[in-house]
Amino acid sequence: MELEFIRWLREQLPPHPLLKIGPGDDAAVLRTAGRGDVVVTTDLIADGVDFDLRVHEPRQIGRKALAMNLSDLAAMAARPLAVVVAVNLPRLWGIQLAVELYEGMLPLAEKFNVAIAGGDTNAWDGGLVISVTALGEVTPRGPLVRSGAQPGDRIIVTGNFGGSIHGHHFDFNPRVAEALLLNDRYTLHAGLDCSDGLSLDLSRIAAESKCGAVIDLDRVPIARAARAQAIDDLGLRDTGLRHALGDGEDFELILAVPPKDAEKMLADQPLDGVKLAEIGEFVREPGLWSRRGDTREKLVPRGFEHEF
Amino acid sequence: MELEFIRWLREQLPPHPLLKIGPGDDAAVLRTAGRGDVVVTTDLIADGVDFDLRVHEPRQIGRKALAMNLSDLAAMAARPLAVVVAVNLPRLWGIQLAVELYEGMLPLAEKFNVAIAGGDTNAWDGGLVISVTALGEVTPRGPLVRSGAQPGDRIIVTGNFGGSIHGHHFDFNPRVAEALLLNDRYTLHAGLDCSDGLSLDLSRIAAESKCGAVIDLDRVPIARAARAQAIDDLGLRDTGLRHALGDGEDFELILAVPPKDAEKMLADQPLDGVKLAEIGEFVREPGLWSRRGDTREKLVPRGFEHEF
Repeated sequence: MELEFIRWLREQLPPHPLLKIGPGDDAAVLRTAGRGDVVVTTDLIADGVDFDLRVHEPRQIGRKALAMNLSDLAAMAARPLAVVVAVNLPRLWGIQLAVELYEGMLPLAEKFNVAIAGGDTNAWDGGLVISVTALGEVTPRGPLVRSGAQPGDRIIVTGNFGGSIHGHHFDFNPRVAEALLLNDRYTLHAGLDCSDGLSLDLSRIAAESKCGAVIDLDRVPIARAARAQAIDDLGLRDTGLRHALGDGEDFELILAVPPKDAEKMLADQPLDGVKLAEIGEFVREPGLWSRRGDTREKLVPRGFEHEF
Repeated sequence: MELEFIRWLREQLPPHPLLKIGPGDDAAVLRTAGRGDVVVTTDLIADGVDFDLRVHEPRQIGRKALAMNLSDLAAMAARPLAVVVAVNLPRLWGIQLAVELYEGMLPLAEKFNVAIAGGDTNAWDGGLVISVTALGEVTPRGPLVRSGAQPGDRIIVTGNFGGSIHGHHFDFNPRVAEALLLNDRYTLHAGLDCSDGLSLDLSRIAAESKCGAVIDLDRVPIARAARAQAIDDLGLRDTGLRHALGDGEDFELILAVPPKDAEKMLADQPLDGVKLAEIGEFVREPGLWSRRGDTREKLVPRGFEHEF
């Protein structure tokens, strides 16, 4: 549904000389006169959807709001510069809630050397809403977009997938340094950060790139929490693969990498404490497939989509 | 209360090489390496606070969300470049609501040549929230800030004040062109856009500039709607001055202008269809006063402040 809306919006928007990349990617890229390109992204999180204020610490929530936006900059292989933060506080909580939200953001902002440039702090009778907008700059290698995957490219991912609801969706580390390093040392054709689900987000790269993708099911790195979640669901030991493919909020990178660079990248394993894995390849025919041995089947993309 | 919070936040934020102007002004100014300064501002509006979805048209609401942010760029004498829009939709309304919000924004974006660069469209069980972040660029004259007023400067305002609840808070024209023209042709020491109330916002310029301000009550340009509002309140004809001083959402410019430039500006009346008026002066002694003839009295700043 959101995709349909973005399609509608894209049709409405007149071409703008400033807009190198508009709505629909992880962030927009602005070409500003006599300057480098500025990357801008916004993400809004709300009580009852992305967190539960009765259960979660405000500091965790503040951290998440910032981390998600940094992850979107990572998805563009952009260097974070600054953020602005708009907050709508439930009136009864008082300003203390805003203080704690910021206390969750400040250490992360410092770690990534991001300026908290400003904001808007409001109160209302509704639930907590935090909207962060992040600005970044692209490196001379240019931005990493969703639409550049080519048939034959390998699907390379960082880290593990699934079960993020058990805590990872709060304490994940945005893959900013990782994206910058990979984009600098290797050729990347396309990429995004996995926020809505591995299979769904992968299908989006494929769709934007007008090609298809095949996932090797046995090669998907499954998070420990995804296996735990699978035991919860079924009462028995399960690989957690279903969760890895569809849970979302992994905030790991999903990349389209030409074969030679993929091979080199996997041999190098250049990331500090983060494993790179190849989980399949992009193919000419549009669509999404799973593969196990010689068996290839249509795979229905699964993940988080807003219901309107 | 928000002011206290901003004070707290300013203390928490480590100095950042990028941040020329941080939280507390109408917008932040980022000094980016090898580029001009980027101005960034964010404003969030919500159902039941800034509009009433049962009464107001979604197109009006969308337009307001964008116009408020453009007004903040005007307050910095910055040229608008692009915006991103984060929306939280009440689930029952469906995506049609987002369409209508954007239909309210699109004509205004086109008029001001602003790129709608991207956004985040979500749904939840709560009320409608729209958070817009706007990017702009300063002219060679630099940004117009709140903290530059000097004793002796005249208080110059555009347009009329008060009663904006009768419609002006939806259909106001952000004073972007006006601010750019005035900043280009005259010396402006400080300025902002009046969003929370003439007396309150004026007291903020004074406080940030470490000086005081005196308002000549008889010279405040009172909007027709403020007089109407005053009749509603009191059942009899009233000047509406109280509304002009405290209603807010006028989105007119309040400027600190050195005497010679103020005189010239008033004689020139250089704005197309928008009148400039002098309504008082900045003084050495911190505080806010009203003046009528020879009588000077302490004036309690009034206006909209979020209650937490």
